[in-house]
Amino acid sequence: MKTILILGGGKSSSYLIDFLSDSCAVKRRRLILADLDLTSAALKLRGRPNTEARQLNIENESLRKELVNESDLVVSMLPAFLHPVVAQDCLELGKHFFTASYETDALREMKGEIENKGLFFLNECGLDPGIDHMSAMKIIDTAKAKGEEIISFKSYCGGLLAPKSEDNPWKYKFTWNPRNVVLAGQATSQYIENGELKFVPYHQLFRRLETIHFPGLGDFDGYPNRDSLSYRKVYGLENIPTMLRGTLRRAGYCKAWDVFVQLGMCDDSFQMDLPENTNLRQFLNSFLPYDPALSVEEKLGNLVHDLDFGTWEKISWLGFFGRRKLPKNQGSPAEILQSILEEDWALQPEDEDMIVMQHLFEIKTQEGVKEVTSSLVSFGEDSVYTAMAKTVGLPLAIAVDLFLEENINLIGLHVPVLRELYEPILKELDLQGIRFREQEKTRN
Amino acid sequence: MKTILILGGGKSSSYLIDFLSDSCAVKRRRLILADLDLTSAALKLRGRPNTEARQLNIENESLRKELVNESDLVVSMLPAFLHPVVAQDCLELGKHFFTASYETDALREMKGEIENKGLFFLNECGLDPGIDHMSAMKIIDTAKAKGEEIISFKSYCGGLLAPKSEDNPWKYKFTWNPRNVVLAGQATSQYIENGELKFVPYHQLFRRLETIHFPGLGDFDGYPNRDSLSYRKVYGLENIPTMLRGTLRRAGYCKAWDVFVQLGMCDDSFQMDLPENTNLRQFLNSFLPYDPALSVEEKLGNLVHDLDFGTWEKISWLGFFGRRKLPKNQGSPAEILQSILEEDWALQPEDEDMIVMQHLFEIKTQEGVKEVTSSLVSFGEDSVYTAMAKTVGLPLAIAVDLFLEENINLIGLHVPVLRELYEPILKELDLQGIRFREQEKTRN
Repeated sequence: MKTILILGGGKSSSYLIDFLSDSCAVKRRRLILADLDLTSAALKLRGRPNTEARQLNIENESLRKELVNESDLVVSMLPAFLHPVVAQDCLELGKHFFTASYETDALREMKGEIENKGLFFLNECGLDPGIDHMSAMKIIDTAKAKGEEIISFKSYCGGLLAPKSEDNPWKYKFTWNPRNVVLAGQATSQYIENGELKFVPYHQLFRRLETIHFPGLGDFDGYPNRDSLSYRKVYGLENIPTMLRGTLRRAGYCKAWDVFVQLGMCDDSFQMDLPENTNLRQFLNSFLPYDPALSVEEKLGNLVHDLDFGTWEKISWLGFFGRRKLPKNQGSPAEILQSILEEDWALQPEDEDMIVMQHLFEIKTQEGVKEVTSSLVSFGEDSVYTAMAKTVGLPLAIAVDLFLEENINLIGLHVPVLRELYEPILKELDLQGIRFREQEKTRN
Repeated sequence: MKTILILGGGKSSSYLIDFLSDSCAVKRRRLILADLDLTSAALKLRGRPNTEARQLNIENESLRKELVNESDLVVSMLPAFLHPVVAQDCLELGKHFFTASYETDALREMKGEIENKGLFFLNECGLDPGIDHMSAMKIIDTAKAKGEEIISFKSYCGGLLAPKSEDNPWKYKFTWNPRNVVLAGQATSQYIENGELKFVPYHQLFRRLETIHFPGLGDFDGYPNRDSLSYRKVYGLENIPTMLRGTLRRAGYCKAWDVFVQLGMCDDSFQMDLPENTNLRQFLNSFLPYDPALSVEEKLGNLVHDLDFGTWEKISWLGFFGRRKLPKNQGSPAEILQSILEEDWALQPEDEDMIVMQHLFEIKTQEGVKEVTSSLVSFGEDSVYTAMAKTVGLPLAIAVDLFLEENINLIGLHVPVLRELYEPILKELDLQGIRFREQEKTRN
């Protein structure tokens, strides 16, 4: 009987836990869910056979290793910075290791030892990274098998609100880690377009937009995300002329968010110590030039080029022109901005989220250039069974299941770009309702 | 007989070395100039009595300590990051320590021990920081002594070209460390204006300008520099409503430099690996959105709001619209930009530099609000005897001289904001031709 250890039963674990603990009733395996909060972990398991909850403070090394040692494979749903610690335990104790997070240099350093010990370490097997890799590789491998050449690949993903819950002008609430949303994009983004390398500094990022359309949902803003260039190698597309990975927000969001970027309000590099009782209007004013003759509104209008009504409405809806007291008056600008947004963008129990992903390929075929648009839309059911939890957790759960069933026979350090990984995982995801819809047209 | 040890005989040491080595002929003291380049050090001393050059690699700890131990006080003209190392030697061996650089936390940690050992450590005794502190404190202390209240203090400084050498559209060449010029301002600047705290992110910095006029020289751009707020305490102006320290460039420079900032070309946070033979036009294009229908010039015009002729001319003069090969094709954007500018902004042997500094005070008096403008202009003589070397080196040399003559009787860690420091130093600077001209007017 094999034992699965899941570390961390947080927000995005609901589907993962259900899928794997349900499987314990019908397959010869058991599951341990270890979390800081024992009661919450036990509730999530709902007393299913062959499952048990354990209390674990991840800093308790001896208990952590004891749990790892009791298991055959470990799924880490912990914050990403903790993965190397757990991976090291797995290496030491000879256990397999699964995450939905980016493969880091710390993991890459373990590569040789993972192979030597005959272990399987799988990262980037969630949504983005995860489903993006798998669905893209399926199209890429299929095209290559036909001798076709991929000349452009753009891939966008966003974790957003279901349209029925889009009840504010931003059409956005926090369906994911608020800090990550506030700091999103704070590095120079890199991509290539028609053979031209492109570099986008943070303060230009939310202006470098492409409009992405989803049938039945309407328009979204896509902005380039981090280093798309490195994915040319991962996807085996070293000489592709156009390659861009990006993030989706509802149309109009980026132009309004850019106001915060331009002001310097997303800056996390220094601490503000503002007077107590500072209000939102004064906070905004501290980023504007001094002018005794102008109002805050006028100064903002002068600073931000082309401030249109839709943008104005979004900033105003958050209360920046009013005199509501700041939720906190000490911290970095980004921390203070986050505290404001957490009041206004809090997900309500009745809210439902939505995941949207779209790949746009241009493939040179004998008939001409084929344009393939492959789109995934996934809706959440409620604030626990979210689309985010489903699309992050199910690929990982399926990978674990396939591995235990010996339908994956790999060793070493992997991300799911190999056919023997993505093919069975995508097949099972399809059965779970996570599937891409493709549109094709060929221009001559 | 006292011994002065000068560490580093680089670009900005000429006046310091002359002043102190001349003094060895007439006062009972000797001087050792230690530098990596023995020949160059010997040339600078010109065989003056009681002076000698020594070869020193600063990483050679035993030789460094031997030299420190042979001296009574050490003047460090080394790169700023090396100061704590030398200061630690001085502390250990009981020697006094002088620099023209900012007092850092590393130095502040030594404060108690400096005092316990009865040593004198003086930092920030150059131009900026240095002359700025001293000249400002003289005005501040004088006003306070009269019971007047300082309600506004802005202070600007720039190291520029003498007008006769302003022979390019930027009216700028590197009279100082090129890397520092390219990275200038890369932190959020903080100041206070009429009681309102103001925070300026880097990408807004070169737009937050004040025009500063020098009689006979014309107009300059002043932009806010780093953390002006912390100087409220240093200057004893804790409750001042307006306090701003800034940097000066020739009028028009900042608007053109802002183009590089907006493009992301001053970014030092990631490495570019551009194809060999990439030219300046292609480098510029890599920061612009892709558009097959537009030229580089048109794309730049679209990206940069309000690109006027003066700005256009400056960018064009550097060759960014042409096909000159990049001097280097690997490195951060800032490093590549620097390599371009070093070709175009190289100081020629016949060029002369200029230091400009201006304090603008508003002082509440019984007669009304007195506006005091105090300006310093200093011209270089040639590419060795620069205004920068004069204004950085002489205050430090004078402080050393006064200390050895026992006209400064302080122990502990200091910057020159005390009257017993700034009064005699300013008096001697005046004799050396470094003096401020004041203009006053009172509004009722």
